[in-house]
Amino acid sequence: MRKTVWLFPALLLLAVTSLAQSKEIIALRKSREQSTRNIIDEFTAFLSLPNLASDTAGQQRNAAFIMEMMRKRGVAHVQLLHGKTTGTPPAVYGDVMVPGASTTLIFYAHYDGQPVNPAQWAAGLSPFTPKLYSGAIDNGGFNIPFLTDGVYQNDWRVYARGASDDKAGVAAILNAYGLIVKSGLRPAVNVKFFFEGEEEAGSPHLGDILENNKDLLQSDCWIICDGPVHQSGKKQIVFGVRGDTHLDLTIYASKRPLHSGHYGNWAPNPAMMMAKLLSSMKDDNGRVTIKGFYDDVTALTASEKKALQEVPAADEQMKAELGIIATEMPGVSLSEAINLPTLNINGFQSGNVGKMASNQIPTFATAVIDLRLVLGNEWKRQQQKVIDHIKAQGYYVTDKEPIEEERKQYPRIIKVIRDDAGLNAQRTPMDLPIAQKVIGAVKTTSNDQVVLQPTLGGSLPLFLFEKILQAKTITVPIANHDNNQHAENENIRLKNLFEGIETMGAIMLMK
Amino acid sequence: MRKTVWLFPALLLLAVTSLAQSKEIIALRKSREQSTRNIIDEFTAFLSLPNLASDTAGQQRNAAFIMEMMRKRGVAHVQLLHGKTTGTPPAVYGDVMVPGASTTLIFYAHYDGQPVNPAQWAAGLSPFTPKLYSGAIDNGGFNIPFLTDGVYQNDWRVYARGASDDKAGVAAILNAYGLIVKSGLRPAVNVKFFFEGEEEAGSPHLGDILENNKDLLQSDCWIICDGPVHQSGKKQIVFGVRGDTHLDLTIYASKRPLHSGHYGNWAPNPAMMMAKLLSSMKDDNGRVTIKGFYDDVTALTASEKKALQEVPAADEQMKAELGIIATEMPGVSLSEAINLPTLNINGFQSGNVGKMASNQIPTFATAVIDLRLVLGNEWKRQQQKVIDHIKAQGYYVTDKEPIEEERKQYPRIIKVIRDDAGLNAQRTPMDLPIAQKVIGAVKTTSNDQVVLQPTLGGSLPLFLFEKILQAKTITVPIANHDNNQHAENENIRLKNLFEGIETMGAIMLMK
Repeated sequence: MRKTVWLFPALLLLAVTSLAQSKEIIALRKSREQSTRNIIDEFTAFLSLPNLASDTAGQQRNAAFIMEMMRKRGVAHVQLLHGKTTGTPPAVYGDVMVPGASTTLIFYAHYDGQPVNPAQWAAGLSPFTPKLYSGAIDNGGFNIPFLTDGVYQNDWRVYARGASDDKAGVAAILNAYGLIVKSGLRPAVNVKFFFEGEEEAGSPHLGDILENNKDLLQSDCWIICDGPVHQSGKKQIVFGVRGDTHLDLTIYASKRPLHSGHYGNWAPNPAMMMAKLLSSMKDDNGRVTIKGFYDDVTALTASEKKALQEVPAADEQMKAELGIIATEMPGVSLSEAINLPTLNINGFQSGNVGKMASNQIPTFATAVIDLRLVLGNEWKRQQQKVIDHIKAQGYYVTDKEPIEEERKQYPRIIKVIRDDAGLNAQRTPMDLPIAQKVIGAVKTTSNDQVVLQPTLGGSLPLFLFEKILQAKTITVPIANHDNNQHAENENIRLKNLFEGIETMGAIMLMK
Repeated sequence: MRKTVWLFPALLLLAVTSLAQSKEIIALRKSREQSTRNIIDEFTAFLSLPNLASDTAGQQRNAAFIMEMMRKRGVAHVQLLHGKTTGTPPAVYGDVMVPGASTTLIFYAHYDGQPVNPAQWAAGLSPFTPKLYSGAIDNGGFNIPFLTDGVYQNDWRVYARGASDDKAGVAAILNAYGLIVKSGLRPAVNVKFFFEGEEEAGSPHLGDILENNKDLLQSDCWIICDGPVHQSGKKQIVFGVRGDTHLDLTIYASKRPLHSGHYGNWAPNPAMMMAKLLSSMKDDNGRVTIKGFYDDVTALTASEKKALQEVPAADEQMKAELGIIATEMPGVSLSEAINLPTLNINGFQSGNVGKMASNQIPTFATAVIDLRLVLGNEWKRQQQKVIDHIKAQGYYVTDKEPIEEERKQYPRIIKVIRDDAGLNAQRTPMDLPIAQKVIGAVKTTSNDQVVLQPTLGGSLPLFLFEKILQAKTITVPIANHDNNQHAENENIRLKNLFEGIETMGAIMLMK
């Protein structure tokens, strides 16, 4: 009996599989399997190019590499897009107009990466020397030479800055197109490619580039390939992003470092002042205590609330994976947390620690905080709330190093640098016809639930597309959730790259 | 009339000068003036030798250099002193027995220096490449080549690690002896030299060395040449030191760094946890809130209280100099603060700051705190008070990186490393005959008040001398108070080095 009971669901699953995964996707997969070594070789060459947005020469090499990737795949119309400001990383553009197609999609990814501190990477890793591992390093993965023969395994990972965020996006999009052509298929929509080079720097010139190339960038929707799939491993489609902005705080105390024995607890200690200031920003339940912090949040719509309810709860899985048993806001789930504005300390520093520590009172303490915004927040207003809070703690706020006169006048002095390229949040309604088509296309690639998220926890400059081009945007992320993006040991699991290619392909093929 | 009025005090001052400064000191000064260029050349060669206590090879070079300094000055008996533990920096010893002398003094200084972070030093400076400046760098001082001709000026400064703390002590002691001999004078006391190589590392083997060389190290008093003169520029004699001990704190959160957008304010942020923890250790008036922190302090004696009252108030001068208008404990003077136990943050760090900052939730936050102790405190007990406080904040305290089982059990995990070489405070009564003699000798070098301090703010392992050798200790510091000891841009003002030589000489000449 037991055998029969087990057999029945297995058969059912098989039926669902053939229903869900289209013939075209299966053809695409075969073609990808035959090309895997070439795909990985090209991808690792791409990852070897340092890609900090501010490194102009480096970004030119990345842009040239992407243009060559497009040309190799037969994309005839390839060009760099600039704004009116010169000397900044260009966007790399290409397009393929398909006879008879009535829909135009622009596929977006970014080729720049977050700043790196190589010293923080695991032994054996270097941000721009991609390495292959049998699994996650912190889970016992070991180094494997890149293959000249044999088959790349799904669970293997490539470690490098940009491996997930977001050169994987560039690779998934261009390989999807290349494999469609190679398989003898053709896209059902006009395909435009747009690869940005300054996303991690806050996209300071994206608006300029969009403005300057409005005609070329007409579309029915932008498909944003960035970010991770759901923690459960299920694919997800995301209809909005949070906004983001930063404040860089520096508290000044004595002009020269002091011996902690001779002046300790008489002279003010800027590290203690910073601890007290940061500490004043949240209560013991992790709620931000800054006045009005949560006041201007736009409530979720009914369909967004419904979608949220269907998102699989990842909390317990994530806690186990991250080795934590408490969260910052007790009783608030990860899904709920992502729909709130945040205040996060990215880093702080004062004096020296570890073996470099010495018995001194440092002259300053510095911290960087980022503020994630949800619909309703406005980035400059959100910065101002924090600044007002700092003032309410007795601080004189300046945007420069304090001069003598200021030191003579104010007992507490802080320099606050606001970033000037903040992003607001954005959300596309998930019941638009184009949104429904994209959902349908992604579903053809998977037997599993496709998770629909009202918003991504992370940030992308999506409001600019809406504002300048009146364009819709839908985000289709592909990276593994444990990819260490923005930190040391960034990596992509090969299965995610492979499935990402299929996902992008399915959208290009959508009827 | 006005002219006469002015003339009178000037004449009076001249009379006081000749009264206070002995003939021998004036002879010593002349001899020093003739030898200044040699003294500086030798001193800068000494400062060029890196001197971190843990750098065994480097410390051997320093010890050899000091032995050579002694031999050059005709000290016949020179040797290295070791404890029972080998492979640690030796103390450098020498002695000169004076026929007919009934008093034996041991002159102590240390030749090791605090750890350095060269990146934090001012442009043009490097810790072990001594440079000469026309004044304090942060007060407009400019670089001057070392002289081959001409006269070194009092206000010039030499910048290097150890310039003040405490190779200046070694140089002052050995030059005082050398110049006494050169001037045709002779010490009135038996002179022993003892130069330690591990003071900044907490003197982990000093007890061992003293224990192992008890007979050689008999004396009537140790003269400790370390630390700064009074902030007013007046010379000072110090009859005790504070104790010192450290705790190295690391709070652990998620095992891997997280994207602040996807997990911010859901996953715990270790930087915020550290801010809250440190912040809980002091109230808004700078008072330590840790239970029992001030309970075991021994009260000052009547003569110590009286001496304290005569210490010139340096508070307003120091505030102006340091560019601050508020102190950590409002209403508590610097003199009072030095007679209290402290809790000071030497440094903290989490994630990255400045241009290296990225939108992440760091995996850990670390901080180093030092605790200064006064008479009555015991270093292990003082550490324990802090640890008990940390536990009371809900932390599980371990001394290792947490393992999986601990992560599954405890919501808040902190690694606390206690230093195992803490120092207790020590005080010598200032009315002992030997103390009165030393006071008298120092007074022969100066027309100004000689400040008598019950305790130095800083720490030296003086309780060991008492415990192992039943010896008295009196500290006679020489460095300028603004010498940046223990931090970047350490320096000595030449006047302080020159006057320090006279001070040490006067004590060797004391009847």
